Amino acid sequence: MGILLSESIQQMTEKLQNWRRDFHHFAESGWFEFRTATIVADELHRLGYSLKMGKEVLKAEARMGLPSAQELQEQEQRAVKQGALAEWLPHFSGGFTGIVATLDTGKTGPTLAFRVDMDALDLNEEQTHVHRPYAEGFSSCNAHMMHACGHDGHTAIGLGLAHILKKHQSHLTGKIKLIFQPAEEGTRGAKSMVEAGVVDDVDFFIAIHLGLGVSHGELVCGCDNFLATTKIDVTYRGVSAHSGAKPEEGRNALLAAAQAALGLHAIPRHSEGSSRINVGVLQAGIGRNVVPDYALMKIETRGKTNEINEFIYHQALSIIEGAAKMQGVEYELKLMGAAQSSLPSPAWVDFIYQQTQKNIPELSSVAKNLQQPAGSEDATYFMERVKANGGQATYLIFGTELSAGHHNERFDFDENVMKTAVKTLATIALHLPDFRTT
Amino acid sequence: MGILLSESIQQMTEKLQNWRRDFHHFAESGWFEFRTATIVADELHRLGYSLKMGKEVLKAEARMGLPSAQELQEQEQRAVKQGALAEWLPHFSGGFTGIVATLDTGKTGPTLAFRVDMDALDLNEEQTHVHRPYAEGFSSCNAHMMHACGHDGHTAIGLGLAHILKKHQSHLTGKIKLIFQPAEEGTRGAKSMVEAGVVDDVDFFIAIHLGLGVSHGELVCGCDNFLATTKIDVTYRGVSAHSGAKPEEGRNALLAAAQAALGLHAIPRHSEGSSRINVGVLQAGIGRNVVPDYALMKIETRGKTNEINEFIYHQALSIIEGAAKMQGVEYELKLMGAAQSSLPSPAWVDFIYQQTQKNIPELSSVAKNLQQPAGSEDATYFMERVKANGGQATYLIFGTELSAGHHNERFDFDENVMKTAVKTLATIALHLPDFRTT
Amino acid sequence: MGILLSESIQQMTEKLQNWRRDFHHFAESGWFEFRTATIVADELHRLGYSLKMGKEVLKAEARMGLPSAQELQEQEQRAVKQGALAEWLPHFSGGFTGIVATLDTGKTGPTLAFRVDMDALDLNEEQTHVHRPYAEGFSSCNAHMMHACGHDGHTAIGLGLAHILKKHQSHLTGKIKLIFQPAEEGTRGAKSMVEAGVVDDVDFFIAIHLGLGVSHGELVCGCDNFLATTKIDVTYRGVSAHSGAKPEEGRNALLAAAQAALGLHAIPRHSEGSSRINVGVLQAGIGRNVVPDYALMKIETRGKTNEINEFIYHQALSIIEGAAKMQGVEYELKLMGAAQSSLPSPAWVDFIYQQTQKNIPELSSVAKNLQQPAGSEDATYFMERVKANGGQATYLIFGTELSAGHHNERFDFDENVMKTAVKTLATIALHLPDFRTT
Amino acid sequence: MGILLSESIQQMTEKLQNWRRDFHHFAESGWFEFRTATIVADELHRLGYSLKMGKEVLKAEARMGLPSAQELQEQEQRAVKQGALAEWLPHFSGGFTGIVATLDTGKTGPTLAFRVDMDALDLNEEQTHVHRPYAEGFSSCNAHMMHACGHDGHTAIGLGLAHILKKHQSHLTGKIKLIFQPAEEGTRGAKSMVEAGVVDDVDFFIAIHLGLGVSHGELVCGCDNFLATTKIDVTYRGVSAHSGAKPEEGRNALLAAAQAALGLHAIPRHSEGSSRINVGVLQAGIGRNVVPDYALMKIETRGKTNEINEFIYHQALSIIEGAAKMQGVEYELKLMGAAQSSLPSPAWVDFIYQQTQKNIPELSSVAKNLQQPAGSEDATYFMERVKANGGQATYLIFGTELSAGHHNERFDFDENVMKTAVKTLATIALHLPDFRTT
Repeated sequence: MGILLSESIQQMTEKLQNWRRDFHHFAESGWFEFRTATIVADELHRLGYSLKMGKEVLKAEARMGLPSAQELQEQEQRAVKQGALAEWLPHFSGGFTGIVATLDTGKTGPTLAFRVDMDALDLNEEQTHVHRPYAEGFSSCNAHMMHACGHDGHTAIGLGLAHILKKHQSHLTGKIKLIFQPAEEGTRGAKSMVEAGVVDDVDFFIAIHLGLGVSHGELVCGCDNFLATTKIDVTYRGVSAHSGAKPEEGRNALLAAAQAALGLHAIPRHSEGSSRINVGVLQAGIGRNVVPDYALMKIETRGKTNEINEFIYHQALSIIEGAAKMQGVEYELKLMGAAQSSLPSPAWVDFIYQQTQKNIPELSSVAKNLQQPAGSEDATYFMERVKANGGQATYLIFGTELSAGHHNERFDFDENVMKTAVKTLATIALHLPDFRTT
Repeated sequence: MGILLSESIQQMTEKLQNWRRDFHHFAESGWFEFRTATIVADELHRLGYSLKMGKEVLKAEARMGLPSAQELQEQEQRAVKQGALAEWLPHFSGGFTGIVATLDTGKTGPTLAFRVDMDALDLNEEQTHVHRPYAEGFSSCNAHMMHACGHDGHTAIGLGLAHILKKHQSHLTGKIKLIFQPAEEGTRGAKSMVEAGVVDDVDFFIAIHLGLGVSHGELVCGCDNFLATTKIDVTYRGVSAHSGAKPEEGRNALLAAAQAALGLHAIPRHSEGSSRINVGVLQAGIGRNVVPDYALMKIETRGKTNEINEFIYHQALSIIEGAAKMQGVEYELKLMGAAQSSLPSPAWVDFIYQQTQKNIPELSSVAKNLQQPAGSEDATYFMERVKANGGQATYLIFGTELSAGHHNERFDFDENVMKTAVKTLATIALHLPDFRTT
Repeated sequence: MGILLSESIQQMTEKLQNWRRDFHHFAESGWFEFRTATIVADELHRLGYSLKMGKEVLKAEARMGLPSAQELQEQEQRAVKQGALAEWLPHFSGGFTGIVATLDTGKTGPTLAFRVDMDALDLNEEQTHVHRPYAEGFSSCNAHMMHACGHDGHTAIGLGLAHILKKHQSHLTGKIKLIFQPAEEGTRGAKSMVEAGVVDDVDFFIAIHLGLGVSHGELVCGCDNFLATTKIDVTYRGVSAHSGAKPEEGRNALLAAAQAALGLHAIPRHSEGSSRINVGVLQAGIGRNVVPDYALMKIETRGKTNEINEFIYHQALSIIEGAAKMQGVEYELKLMGAAQSSLPSPAWVDFIYQQTQKNIPELSSVAKNLQQPAGSEDATYFMERVKANGGQATYLIFGTELSAGHHNERFDFDENVMKTAVKTLATIALHLPDFRTT
Repeated sequence: MGILLSESIQQMTEKLQNWRRDFHHFAESGWFEFRTATIVADELHRLGYSLKMGKEVLKAEARMGLPSAQELQEQEQRAVKQGALAEWLPHFSGGFTGIVATLDTGKTGPTLAFRVDMDALDLNEEQTHVHRPYAEGFSSCNAHMMHACGHDGHTAIGLGLAHILKKHQSHLTGKIKLIFQPAEEGTRGAKSMVEAGVVDDVDFFIAIHLGLGVSHGELVCGCDNFLATTKIDVTYRGVSAHSGAKPEEGRNALLAAAQAALGLHAIPRHSEGSSRINVGVLQAGIGRNVVPDYALMKIETRGKTNEINEFIYHQALSIIEGAAKMQGVEYELKLMGAAQSSLPSPAWVDFIYQQTQKNIPELSSVAKNLQQPAGSEDATYFMERVKANGGQATYLIFGTELSAGHHNERFDFDENVMKTAVKTLATIALHLPDFRTT
């Protein structure tokens, strides 16, 4: 079995690279993955997977940090020009760029789901010869959009896995679901898929990421240190006035934001674990001689547990409201993203640990967890839902060499990691019947 | 007449000095003027004035910045030891230390009122030989109480005036009211006398002050630049917590006060005139390793007009409330004092200007108004009430040499100013029938 | 003489309107007045004035708030497309858009200077039929540039005055200087002309403005309540860091700006007169999850006197530096504009008051000063320099009806004011020999 | 041996209780332990220990948070009245209230040191019958001083241990040092003993505490989660001014403190572990109408490691200095206390773990470390010095039932814990020759 698998995957080397480089070249940021989604859908459909798409797999009002209708429309037109497939595009129109593909083996067995994400970052890619994607002609052709986190690789791995599983379908049991998620950056997309119920029938769940500081050839079976997070935009609206002639007639939104920013950063530490707060952006006022009637803050809170994140978030709400009151201004708060903390299921991690040590000689080392903090991830929404229903969930990290850190304009990775990932995930699927909880 | 008056007053030289030095020695701060009030009452009663005292002339709930019941009781006991007259003391018990003495001439005519204040400052007097009151044995014997603003002189002038008017009663018409007010420092006492109605029947009103930067021999007939003011104490109450073990359990009153203090000082300027804001005192917290659950701020607002002061005050209220909300703490706000802005009645100022230029050769110069700002004064409450009823009101300043500025621990003044003041005020009373509005 | 003048001016009605509407249509913001300046230069040259331009009349390094070299170049190209005269353009290239035209009568006499300004505001003009300039086809064709303060009228008045003075040259004595200044908005241009020495030989100086809340037909001969002002841009530069992974590695420029903004607004009031402070714009940070390494604040201080403005400005410098120190960030401070307070010369105001009352029947009323505050004006630099050299200086306001307030996107004015202004200014020039200081 | 020890200790029951209750009744806060120290010295001297005291064991300038000379003198006089032994008092005069007692067995062997602390807290003890110390007549007779942390018990344990070790001297080898430290509260005293060299010859070191949330009968052999800490007082000195008359002449110390307090609490979290910051006290200003020229802040920083504490502390220094600069005020910073983080020596913890499990049946449970955070402790200075010299150090916690939490005015403990502690410590001393590092 292992040898057959290795051969199948080896034959996919070029395919994986082509997919990845195509997605990299036509990088699409969160909720704009129109072209990517049509290509994914087309490929999965041709393989014979049963598809659910768009509004079937995304609860509209649970999508966070959605761009404006105008931006969505412009980007859809851009995607059309860049080869989005007309047959599939209507499913994704308006920022519904998610897909769930199901393979029903017909045999009794549990449902196993894999989740990959498809979105790029809001970043301009390095366009010089020192950067391989540019040198080899596949750097992003879209301004302010770049695959600098490896989601292009994730999508390619998802398609590769789809091929392999289909090819070895006779050895599988139960159902396999492949989830292609939009807008992971800013932790905006997962919640709407979970609320649409896409993992409500799932017994085993795996989300993946490549890189993250793990060396090439290493696998982490149960990343256990994601921070829960909430992302909000706060807008203050006051009253403008001429600052020389009638300062007393103003209601100063800039001062409200300044008071709030200080108050937010002064939220107390929590004795039970790490917390974070950041006002990453503050934009206020329109002219030097006008009392500012407008201020925008982009804020995020984090916590080692959901409870700690909630603590910071609720303190933040009071501070934001109180600062508005202080300056007599109105405020509006918009939820832009969120993720949970989530611990992997121990038995599931153990199983993957044993299976991969035994069956994947490509892996030079396998670890159960990650030593350093891992930021935030909205795959945690899937994990928590699956666990709440009694299932097993985990998050895998496939180590690989990076040319620069994640979110850097020179980010690139060793594409061989994709084959290892496909083999590992397929192996887990094939050995799933061996899973026993003790 | 002028010569007779001068002789009468010359004979009072020693009496005026004795009164002033007695009050100076037994200095009593606002609402604690127990001993002073009994001596004033006794003197006026013996002269034959009809007296109203205590609760008759002070509306209890309108008294601002009242000390605690315990402090009032302790100070009353102190006054007894220092010679307060037992016969009169019960009228003033509990912080009702005001007197209104009326002389009814029996003849038709308007009611003319003079107001003086009796309270000392919360200050320790200089006790060295460079300071005349110490060298000559009449410096304050009460810790943290000192007549450093000249109210001892005002009270002596009031008693001197009572003597002179009584002596020359046959030349007077209408009624004369002498108002002895407590707690002018901090602008705490006037409002309660006004609300008790003591000037509701007054047609002509004069309040006085000595010094204030005016040279000896000069008179200002219509001080017109008092700032309206409001004095408040704000207390924040949060929740304490061990700052090392459980910082998240605290609700930080100190940070609420810090946010508020910054916000208060950042209240915008007003384009229509001067404004002021000051957080003069901030006391917060009990221990280095405890999240502070308590903070006190002593605040004052001021404005060139009542409207500007109200603007600043209402901005302050929002800031104080908003800062509480920011830190999730409770707050309490206590009104500690207030004064208005008030313009003197022009015709009344003109009349006094002419009468004093003609009749008081002791005055080297008479001015209608004061060039520099004059701080705040709660005599403005009397002035505004008299004017609202159609009467005439003004505020006189009798210039004199000072040994140090007002509110300084070495403050002293040239006692000759008292005779000039008595003569000026008596002259105005005697010539009142000549007043004509044009 | 008066009748002749009136006739000459009446014949200019259309010319004045055409100039004004042409400048209005091709509105050019400060330091971008390329097209305007070439037209002004050409007209004055053809009238026979002797011209100094560009670097001759603007000290390069004293120009404040200069746009970037790239912006200057782009705008110069824009001006070329819009009809800037190639013959004159090189003089103004690079943001040297000032002109001084001299008429030497050849007769003995003092030098009299008139100053007008030519720049538009950074504002999008209303483009609907309710707005006359749009309805009649002369609203601004340049985005974000609009004559919403009347400087188009000032420039037309300057050209009209040039015509009239030339026509009546035989009745004049001494020299006349017409100063066409760039970049008055933001008080950026005057200082560089003064430092280039353009008024060093001037004995009598007049600057003008139309509108400013004065009714049509009214003239103010000596506007005396400009606030001194300083405009600065402050940039903080810290160190960015991932706010989730390594918050301790950041140096937070946003927090420095927040601290500074609060501190700036909390600068104490000044007891000797009005002061102002405003942080009109604050822009900080690049992403929600990044510790902000950048912040920009646009600030202005004002004061009733130069001393008060200096007080506020120097307090601001300490606050800006201290806030940088608090957060361990670097800062850069850039002077963007400045104006002084300046009192008109009393004898000069009196002279104009008498001459205009006698000779300009078009004026329904003449006042010596303006009752309300008048904002800031950099003509004060000219005034202070002329007075320092022993000359006479003043600032005239020609009242007129406005369709909306200054700096409003619907601003427009009654164009008849231009004829009144030309006649008034010409009359003063013709009667100058009658001036006598007493 | 174990049985003999148990018997000896059983006989000390009353003695231990008497000592503890005597110290409790005459509670003495840090650097005021005059009476306590004389009694301890007398007892140890009579047992035959060789003593070093006062300036021999405390480096004068390394004492932190020392009260004023006047307070020290007053408290020394108080101690005399309360029975301080005149023979020993001179050693401790001036706040040198430490003792090191040495027992030299004469036999070859390592030096083992035990450290106990003697100071009370600045707290008023509950004086009602619900509180056992009051009901049984040994509650504190000193206002604002109370043994609410158990140091009275520690001192009694130290004396009990001295008795037992002396009694069983023949079974001991090497040297034993008993360290009686002043001023542990506020982490003020240890550093000066360490800098005086009192543990420079020590091979094995044990510090102890009772309670701390550990149940009665339990022992923690290696408390490993003390937070490093730094305690500072910051004083701002500005310039006062009348807030109504001359606000511009003030330099506002209160606003500097407000800016600093906000900035301090906004110091970023550290990704490598817990940190803390607290401004526990802020006192500023003298009067409502005076620009505050004075502010005091009591601050503490903490960190999981010395490095993290240093990070917070150095950020704090910049903030404190920057806030002074912002308001143009001077500042002074005073070190009031400090402690380090310190990990117990693993081999030494293991040895104690094994010895106590084997030999102390009174202990129902023995743990190697403490699960919850343990605050800060300046015993860490001793530990770090001993370890730096190649020795072994640890911190033991003897669990016991408490009537209320540490630092609560109703704090009391089960006195039986003292016997267990004496037996445990003596046992370790007696078995020390068995220690082997592997």
